[in-house]
Amino acid sequence: MKIEVTQEKINKALNIVSKVAGGNRATLPILNNILIKVEKKKVSLTATNLDVAIVDYIPTSKSEDGNVTIPARLLADFVSNLPRGEMVEISTDGNKVKIKSGKYASIINGTPADDYPELPEIDEKKALTFKMNVDDFKEGLEGIVFASSNDLTRPALTGVYFNTNDSDLYLAATDGYRLAERKFISKVKSEVEAIVPAGSLQEVLRSVDDETEEIEILFDESQVRFRLDEIEITSKLIDGSFPDYRQLIPKKSDIEVELEREELVRVTKLAALFAREVGGSVILETNKEKQVFTIASVVNEYGENTSEIETKIDKDVKVVLNSRYLLDVLNILKDEKVGLRFSNKLDPVVVKNASDKGEYTHIIMPLNMK
Amino acid sequence: MKIEVTQEKINKALNIVSKVAGGNRATLPILNNILIKVEKKKVSLTATNLDVAIVDYIPTSKSEDGNVTIPARLLADFVSNLPRGEMVEISTDGNKVKIKSGKYASIINGTPADDYPELPEIDEKKALTFKMNVDDFKEGLEGIVFASSNDLTRPALTGVYFNTNDSDLYLAATDGYRLAERKFISKVKSEVEAIVPAGSLQEVLRSVDDETEEIEILFDESQVRFRLDEIEITSKLIDGSFPDYRQLIPKKSDIEVELEREELVRVTKLAALFAREVGGSVILETNKEKQVFTIASVVNEYGENTSEIETKIDKDVKVVLNSRYLLDVLNILKDEKVGLRFSNKLDPVVVKNASDKGEYTHIIMPLNMK
Repeated sequence: MKIEVTQEKINKALNIVSKVAGGNRATLPILNNILIKVEKKKVSLTATNLDVAIVDYIPTSKSEDGNVTIPARLLADFVSNLPRGEMVEISTDGNKVKIKSGKYASIINGTPADDYPELPEIDEKKALTFKMNVDDFKEGLEGIVFASSNDLTRPALTGVYFNTNDSDLYLAATDGYRLAERKFISKVKSEVEAIVPAGSLQEVLRSVDDETEEIEILFDESQVRFRLDEIEITSKLIDGSFPDYRQLIPKKSDIEVELEREELVRVTKLAALFAREVGGSVILETNKEKQVFTIASVVNEYGENTSEIETKIDKDVKVVLNSRYLLDVLNILKDEKVGLRFSNKLDPVVVKNASDKGEYTHIIMPLNMK
Repeated sequence: MKIEVTQEKINKALNIVSKVAGGNRATLPILNNILIKVEKKKVSLTATNLDVAIVDYIPTSKSEDGNVTIPARLLADFVSNLPRGEMVEISTDGNKVKIKSGKYASIINGTPADDYPELPEIDEKKALTFKMNVDDFKEGLEGIVFASSNDLTRPALTGVYFNTNDSDLYLAATDGYRLAERKFISKVKSEVEAIVPAGSLQEVLRSVDDETEEIEILFDESQVRFRLDEIEITSKLIDGSFPDYRQLIPKKSDIEVELEREELVRVTKLAALFAREVGGSVILETNKEKQVFTIASVVNEYGENTSEIETKIDKDVKVVLNSRYLLDVLNILKDEKVGLRFSNKLDPVVVKNASDKGEYTHIIMPLNMK
């Protein structure tokens, strides 16, 4: 096996692929390795943690067929310390992998590619396939993925639910305390219903670069593949049923408050500082008489904090929320103004861009406090 | 007590002072607090971990005498989230501390200043005092402080040794494996011999800002005070005797090699990657016949790495060093070219800026390997 490629190209590919290798505290030592393969002159770097596999095809004119596996971190760190702009030559002599760039040379002990786990295959002809603008997909997904759960005892909530409704694609995630849903006008021909692990989607987000324009998504019954130019990410789907979340989204709310996003972030952070010892709980209150929106920490041994923002208020309400959830969603909203919608003190609070016409829905469940 | 001050001024002071509060996993809860004191209209913020105390005097025209202690992190985080450019008002009502800035207001529960530990006092009239250009001192100290030890069983090595010789001031530190010494032409009138804790010196380095021009250093028998404009850092000295280090510095070396610093950093990093599993040991070798300097990892199960740099070589030598120590010192050297001096394989290796005329001495002890 032999490859000649610029330092920039291989460095970029290694940065993306090596993160998956050994990512899940690799149960098999060989999962700390990446597989370098040249097949019919086509060069690929592959890593997998058995749940997700990532393959990066590197365009190069000079190569000789063959394959080997090699410790991912060592190779990635070595290549990233080589000078920019130089050619890097990787060749094998049995399991010894020689890496050469100008006057820098190393030998890394590899292991045979036969020992590497089999990679997930998708029959692309039979798969349900659709394409989307990658920037839209990325922006949309970033608003969803953080709302998923880390609780492995409820596997369905650790993923993002892809589902179709009237040929539009919806992505949804919930950890039981908050829920995010994003609608994409995508003209998907068949019905999709699949839960994709949030961790696999983080790999997709990490792999998007400025040059990528389109993402191709392929589902079969138990797997999904995301294709970004030269990169393919193939993941298992989560087996389970996603909660019937649509019924949780309030059809309408009694009160809508419009606020400057930056100002709301600031006052939420200030209140959150005082709420550290009470799990981050903060009190949101509207006051019709004074026409002010108030955010306050629950009084505790450290002290108290209250901030007021003047805005148009139609009705009084008081809810207790986890400030971290509110900051999480404010962080991904882009408008200068955001809207908060309330009904009663235990009804879900809707948080949205002021201009949003229903593309992105985010709700936070209030806490039950006196 | 009452203070009115701009957000910028109090934020900067809190950033510096609050790091000391609770720094050493505060043994007394009140050490997590800072002491705010207004005495004859002079405002000061103080924190201590009992080893070192830091006081920042804040120039302000509006204040009323009094004092209180208040949780450092909460106050610092609160103030840093307030808008820039606004005035901040801090006032007490018993132990309740009110903080107000424009429309933002909080009450933090304080504790009486009487409960705060007594702060170290230095009789400045009797102290040995000298002043230095702060940039020189900072640059010099940065070359020394990292060479001190973390090993609390050898307290003298956890500090930096201040000592005078012919009216010049020397700073030295060693962890037993490497040694750094810096000479300052400072015309100190009396003899100094004191070991200052490295941690206290880190606080001094953190407290230097671009506007500071001079540092005043005052020693009494058991303490040292560093004064940087409005900031005073007072530290205990370490009781113990510093090793007679001057005898360890080679008077002359048999071989001197001159190398590009950036190139030496690169090849050391490359070799170090392969040396992770062997404690970072790398082999430095000069080859007179080929006129090359070589740095290589010790061959191990992961592979091997060798880099050659062409340079003028008078004699052959081979030493084994810890690559981390070499990278640490290369990191603080500033010249484009650096010099390495060797004698025999177990003699100390001297690392220096090529232009250095004896201001800064750094030696690394080789490892004894076959």
